[in-house]
Amino acid sequence: MEDRRNFMMKMAAGMAATSLISVSKRVNAREIPTKKVFVHHVFFWLKEPKNAEARAEFEKGLQALVKVPQLQSYHIGIPVKSDREVVDDSFTFSYIAYFKNSEDQNIYQSHPIHLKFIEDCQHLWEKVIVYDTMN
Amino acid sequence: MEDRRNFMMKMAAGMAATSLISVSKRVNAREIPTKKVFVHHVFFWLKEPKNAEARAEFEKGLQALVKVPQLQSYHIGIPVKSDREVVDDSFTFSYIAYFKNSEDQNIYQSHPIHLKFIEDCQHLWEKVIVYDTMN
Repeated sequence: MEDRRNFMMKMAAGMAATSLISVSKRVNAREIPTKKVFVHHVFFWLKEPKNAEARAEFEKGLQALVKVPQLQSYHIGIPVKSDREVVDDSFTFSYIAYFKNSEDQNIYQSHPIHLKFIEDCQHLWEKVIVYDTMN
Repeated sequence: MEDRRNFMMKMAAGMAATSLISVSKRVNAREIPTKKVFVHHVFFWLKEPKNAEARAEFEKGLQALVKVPQLQSYHIGIPVKSDREVVDDSFTFSYIAYFKNSEDQNIYQSHPIHLKFIEDCQHLWEKVIVYDTMN
């Protein structure tokens, strides 16, 4: 136990001796690559946005869709209502899929899970807009 | 391509100048969907999308804008071109700001840094669409 405590204290002293510059370099090095991401943002306008069954069916479809392994992360949301003229809050569902790069997004487009989502759910929507953006 | 490289270099320079505390606060977009988050996604169509000076001025404005302390994270991007009919790749810049909740987004709306961004940059754009969504 005493040995372990001494070891920990030496570790702490060693870490304190590390320059701030190298700490900041490490943080930035980690920060830059994580910011590089392909954002695939899709807005769906359902034919019956107030129909609870249609919404549930659609959400179930989205929950299956996000299982495509190329997704690094995702966000499924509903509109935040606003009186501001510049805000479009008319959509029914927002779906953001985050990919590492364009190649992964291409794989996703033709992935069987994605094709099944379209087949199962396309009767539910009347309009879709996709915005793809990369930093 | 040169525009894009300059943009990336500016992004990197801006991040390097950011303090350690704020860097650690800006979490990876990949972690975002695991939490309850307010996504504020803004698309800008510049009046002169091919004018390098106008683009640089606008990008500088965005880099100042993301200093608003309520932002948990952000993503600044350009369109990924696509032949798919459902994809709108006509915008000039995409800007996503992630907030903890609606209250923080309201504070951001009237924050002096945000008001200054509008004042400084609104002459550059001809169209803006905002989508606000929460999970």
